[in-house]
Amino acid sequence: MLIFETAQAMQAWCKQQKKAGQTIGLVPTMGYLHQGHLSLVQEARRQCDRVVVSIFVNPIQFGVGEDLDKYPRDLSGDCQLLEEAQTDAVFAPSARDMYPEAYATFVEMEGTITNRLCGASRPGHFRGVTTVVSKLFNICLPDQAFFGQKDAQQVLVIEKMVRELNFPLEIVRVPIKREADGLAMSSRNVYLSSEQRRQALVLSQALQQAGAIIGQGERDPAKIIAGMQTRIESAPEARIDYIEIYRAEDLADIKQIEGKVLIALAVKFGNTRLIDNLLVEV
Amino acid sequence: MLIFETAQAMQAWCKQQKKAGQTIGLVPTMGYLHQGHLSLVQEARRQCDRVVVSIFVNPIQFGVGEDLDKYPRDLSGDCQLLEEAQTDAVFAPSARDMYPEAYATFVEMEGTITNRLCGASRPGHFRGVTTVVSKLFNICLPDQAFFGQKDAQQVLVIEKMVRELNFPLEIVRVPIKREADGLAMSSRNVYLSSEQRRQALVLSQALQQAGAIIGQGERDPAKIIAGMQTRIESAPEARIDYIEIYRAEDLADIKQIEGKVLIALAVKFGNTRLIDNLLVEV
Repeated sequence: MLIFETAQAMQAWCKQQKKAGQTIGLVPTMGYLHQGHLSLVQEARRQCDRVVVSIFVNPIQFGVGEDLDKYPRDLSGDCQLLEEAQTDAVFAPSARDMYPEAYATFVEMEGTITNRLCGASRPGHFRGVTTVVSKLFNICLPDQAFFGQKDAQQVLVIEKMVRELNFPLEIVRVPIKREADGLAMSSRNVYLSSEQRRQALVLSQALQQAGAIIGQGERDPAKIIAGMQTRIESAPEARIDYIEIYRAEDLADIKQIEGKVLIALAVKFGNTRLIDNLLVEV
Repeated sequence: MLIFETAQAMQAWCKQQKKAGQTIGLVPTMGYLHQGHLSLVQEARRQCDRVVVSIFVNPIQFGVGEDLDKYPRDLSGDCQLLEEAQTDAVFAPSARDMYPEAYATFVEMEGTITNRLCGASRPGHFRGVTTVVSKLFNICLPDQAFFGQKDAQQVLVIEKMVRELNFPLEIVRVPIKREADGLAMSSRNVYLSSEQRRQALVLSQALQQAGAIIGQGERDPAKIIAGMQTRIESAPEARIDYIEIYRAEDLADIKQIEGKVLIALAVKFGNTRLIDNLLVEV
C-alpha cells in the first residue's frame, strides 16, 4: 500500500493509473476509521481497479469553537486497517499542502440544500466540504467516489455539486453502518462517556419509531417529530440541535409525508454532537 | 469537425479521447472569433493531439446593465474559421444546458486578485468566470488550456484557481494579438463607430509610452499613470474606467516599479468598454 503526503505526488500516481487504463475508486475520510468507513472501502474494492482512501481532517469545514483541535486521529492504526482492506493508496496530506499561504479559492453551494439541518447549525461547514471534495476529485481523478448515507445532507450536496460542476465521475452512496445496539458508527462516538453512550441509543430508537408510525399510516411531519422529541428527551443528557423532515431529493419543505423523505436529527450529549437519519419512501 | 451542444455529449467524447491516450487542448471562448482567438487555437494545435474550442457567452459573468443581450454572436462564421484552423471539436452549449433550473454551485476566489481592476468595475464577473471555466475543465478534460494575455487579470485568476483547486492541467498564456495600428483585438471592437475606432488607438499608444518612460528610468507608478491619463484624455470620447499598475504575480500594490509589473487599463468609448495591458520587467 502506497502512502502519499502531497497533492502533487498523489495526482501524479493517479494520472499514471488512468493512463494505464485503470479505474479509480476514491473514499474521502477524516480518518479514525471504523466499520462504516471500511464498508465504503469494500464497496470501492468491489467496483474499481484501484482504491484510494484520503485521510484529511479538513480545517475549513470546522467552525469556530468546534472540535477541530481534538478531532481524534490515528494515522498508523488507520493505515493498518486500510492495508487489510486491500487499499492501493492512502492520501494523507498536511493542511499546509492542501491550503498554502494566501489560499483563496472556494466552491460554494447556495440555497436550502446547504442552509438547512447541519448547514444551519454549522455556518460555512458545507463550503469547506464542497471545496475539499473538489480538490480531492481533481487530485485523485476517481471514476467513482464513495460516501456514507450517515452524512445524508453531505452526500446530497456532493451529488448536486458533481452534476452542476460536471465532475466526470459517479457518486456511490453506501448505507449507514450501526453498532449491534443500533448506534450509528461515528469517529465522534469515542468522545462519549459510558453513560452518554448508553443514552445515545435513543437516536436510532427515535428514528425506528418514526419509521414504524409512518408504516402505520401517520402522515403529519409535526406529529412524527413530536414523538421523536419525547423519545430523545427521555435521555437526561440529550440536547436536541434539530429533528427535521424534508423531501429527500432536495431538502424542500413538505406538508405531509409522501414520496421519499429524509428524517434527520442532530443531538448533543455533553460536547459531543451526533447525527443520524432515516430515508423513508411511502 | 464535430459540434457538441450538450455537456454530456462533449464529456463523453473527451473521455473517449483520453482513454485512447490522446492529449486534449481546450480554448475557451465566447465566440465571434478574431485572430486573437485563432492564435490560441494554433498554439493548441501545435501542442495537443485534440483541439476543443468552446463557444459560450456565459451569462453569469455579465453584470446587470452590461452587454449580455447584445454581445456579438456568429456561430456559423466561427465554425468556418475553426474548421480552417483544424479544430477537432466545438462545444457550443445552451445556457440552459450549462445552468439548469435551480443551479446553485459556484467557484469563488477571494482577495485582491479578484477585487481590483475589472473585479472592482464588474462585481461578480470573476465568480462567473471561475465557475464556467471549472465546468469547462470538467467537461472537456484538457491537458492544457489556452488563454490570451489580453485578459491579463482573468489568466492570473485562472492560474491561481488551477493551482488551488488542483486541476490536473496546465494553463498556457498566449500574447495579445493587435491590429496593424496597435489596437488590441477584441470581439467588442465591432461596437465602435469609425471615429471611436480611430480614437481608441490612444490605449495601445499610452501603454507603449508607459513602457518607453520606464525604459528611460522612470520608477514612480503615479507619474507613469498621470502620463497615460493625459494621453488617453486627448481622445474626446474616451472615458477612463481605470489605469493601474500592480505587481504582475498577484496584483499586490507597489510603491515603485520593480520586478515584473502589470500596467492595465479599461476605457469606455460610448457604451463600449475596452481593456488592454502591458507586462513590464525591470
